[in-house]
Amino acid sequence: MLGNIVIGQSGGPTAVINCSVAGVYAEAKKLGAPKVFGMVHGIEGFLEDKLCDLDNYLADPMGLELLKRTPSAFLGSCRYKMPAIEGHEDVYEKVIAIMEKHDIEVMFYIGGNDSMDTVKMLSDFAAEKGKKQRFIGVPKTIDNDLPVTDHCPGYGSAAKYIATSLKEIIRDNESFGAAKPTVCVVEIMGRHAGWLTAAAALAKGDDCSGADAIYLPETVFDMDAFMEKVEHLAKTKRSVVIAVSEGVKLADGTFVCEAGAGAAAVDAFGHKQLSGCAAILSRMIAEKTGLKTRAIEFSTLQRAASHIASATDAEDAFQSGRDAAKAAADGKTGVMVILKRLQSDPYLCGTDIYDIHEIANVERHVPVEWITEDGCGLTEDFIAYASPLIQGEVPQIYVNGTPRHLIMKELAEF
Amino acid sequence: MLGNIVIGQSGGPTAVINCSVAGVYAEAKKLGAPKVFGMVHGIEGFLEDKLCDLDNYLADPMGLELLKRTPSAFLGSCRYKMPAIEGHEDVYEKVIAIMEKHDIEVMFYIGGNDSMDTVKMLSDFAAEKGKKQRFIGVPKTIDNDLPVTDHCPGYGSAAKYIATSLKEIIRDNESFGAAKPTVCVVEIMGRHAGWLTAAAALAKGDDCSGADAIYLPETVFDMDAFMEKVEHLAKTKRSVVIAVSEGVKLADGTFVCEAGAGAAAVDAFGHKQLSGCAAILSRMIAEKTGLKTRAIEFSTLQRAASHIASATDAEDAFQSGRDAAKAAADGKTGVMVILKRLQSDPYLCGTDIYDIHEIANVERHVPVEWITEDGCGLTEDFIAYASPLIQGEVPQIYVNGTPRHLIMKELAEF
Repeated sequence: MLGNIVIGQSGGPTAVINCSVAGVYAEAKKLGAPKVFGMVHGIEGFLEDKLCDLDNYLADPMGLELLKRTPSAFLGSCRYKMPAIEGHEDVYEKVIAIMEKHDIEVMFYIGGNDSMDTVKMLSDFAAEKGKKQRFIGVPKTIDNDLPVTDHCPGYGSAAKYIATSLKEIIRDNESFGAAKPTVCVVEIMGRHAGWLTAAAALAKGDDCSGADAIYLPETVFDMDAFMEKVEHLAKTKRSVVIAVSEGVKLADGTFVCEAGAGAAAVDAFGHKQLSGCAAILSRMIAEKTGLKTRAIEFSTLQRAASHIASATDAEDAFQSGRDAAKAAADGKTGVMVILKRLQSDPYLCGTDIYDIHEIANVERHVPVEWITEDGCGLTEDFIAYASPLIQGEVPQIYVNGTPRHLIMKELAEF
Repeated sequence: MLGNIVIGQSGGPTAVINCSVAGVYAEAKKLGAPKVFGMVHGIEGFLEDKLCDLDNYLADPMGLELLKRTPSAFLGSCRYKMPAIEGHEDVYEKVIAIMEKHDIEVMFYIGGNDSMDTVKMLSDFAAEKGKKQRFIGVPKTIDNDLPVTDHCPGYGSAAKYIATSLKEIIRDNESFGAAKPTVCVVEIMGRHAGWLTAAAALAKGDDCSGADAIYLPETVFDMDAFMEKVEHLAKTKRSVVIAVSEGVKLADGTFVCEAGAGAAAVDAFGHKQLSGCAAILSRMIAEKTGLKTRAIEFSTLQRAASHIASATDAEDAFQSGRDAAKAAADGKTGVMVILKRLQSDPYLCGTDIYDIHEIANVERHVPVEWITEDGCGLTEDFIAYASPLIQGEVPQIYVNGTPRHLIMKELAEF
């Protein structure tokens, strides 16, 4: 049995973050929760008592289905970082007071590293002060950089978007038959961990030659070796498509994108120019080789393209939420749900719960042994790990030509 | 009855350009064509006698279905412009000679303005010299800027991609609840005609507030009015998303993107900086208002994203090809197939054929009366025109998590 609960979302959204809301809601209702509240704009809104009653949207099963197909944070997100407990007890007391006011037993917080830190501090505070309120984390991040869990809900859909879009870009680039190839540099999110960029390796298959080189932030970016690689590719191939992480760094630790903006680059309007690393690298290639180049950034679409979400990812996100509710009913607090892969082929995944102290603020990187020796490719071990996560599609509900989303009216009002 | 034919593709590809190949092939076979050749890399490859036998790929109905779902030019594309006939008769004679060599009666060329110019000149040459070979144009362009035809195959799918992606971006941008909004500037293709950028208006619906302002190249871009509009929006809204055409121009005729690159903007590597207009505008907004901004370019994906192709568009592309083959069987030459809308609600579209001389090198723009008085929106008339073109989806054949494409092995070989 479960009393009233509240669900919040925090940080950069994903294509399936709302599947976790759906999972918590559906299971909590099964477990008898009288009220399931949503925080409007995460803990930041919660501190201002901004709540909504999720029954208004999700009691109807059609609402729940639409929610699973809605990208971005349905409840609204925030980038609010809880202050250290010491010296800011009032903020923590306020959270507890608002929970007491609405008779809320458990708070579920869906997010990445920072959000798990919030869960940790809130549960630590409650334990320390002998409060009965409980706090449970539900993982979410396209970056896939949370430790302990096999993978993070949100990653699979972003990876599917990246693999599919890259495949389409490669087709486009290959279609031109000029003697000199066009070099296309595609920039992928992930400043510190290369999981998303690594997903470029999933474009390869019987019907696609794949990305010609993939550069992760886990290895030092050597500009000379890069240019040499590109020149070699351009001599031997009709089409060259390269994937780079936004976070690639030179040996001295400078981000390639920062290096490019370092000098006082000012445009005709007198504004400082800031470019992404794909733009910088494609300009360098054009100048050095005379080849036609193109820079593409997947940008926000990587985390928002629910129209091509992975069904496996959506299911993992849903069961993470569902099992968080079960853990709450078991009296747990200060834990995060983790995904435990039981087998890869065929893929089978369950969940477990894990002490939040082991998770918060720890970043997981792509293992170096999954990067090929030349530093610009991924091994079969990575493919075996990531490929199951992009399988399956979530049929969208199209209305008037675009996928239908569920909207929370309180978002605009608050 | 039809003899041997050859099909070519030219210019920037679209998500459904291969549906037109499928249409020509299927109908030509019905009409008894013994051989259906494909040009490898358009007229450029044809001049080097680079041909493939399409039976190898399309005789199997599964091949035809896969072809319809394959983005970019299956046959390979080119950007080759035929020289003026006068003084270059040898080039034209060569085309005729290669057609004679393979006993080819009719050439079908699928493309935009430049490609229709090729069809015009080839058919003019044949008429002038009394050659029996015939030439038929099949329209294709995401830009939707060909005259006479109601719309161009390729536009509907690009428009559906733009509307869907923009909706997902708006959701993402709205999810953050900070007191100050993030201003997102989305750059859309179409240097001279604003059809693609106008498609941003299709994101709006019961579940989406839509783009906050849309700027087409058909109107003069007033920088002061733009900044005023953005500042007003930022004061009244939580999220601001603006769509701009890559081709927006200042009153003096300078492209905004050129203006930004005008000064000697040089990065730390000593390379000249070139930015798109979204990057320039978002930097200007950030500096003037202090707001967080983000520039997004849809880039190649607009024309390559077959995974979200419009079924209506795919059908229009197929019937354009099919009816080109019928026109060929009727003995036509020097014509292009056009789409004739019979009614918008419900949408019903047929085809006709039209003299290529009226079409080649003429650019069609968004009618000024379809742009709202404030210069940054589209009227209901535009919506009524464009909305039917994005309806319906083409179910993809997913293999291993990504959509399967059909590959022509000669592309890499030649």
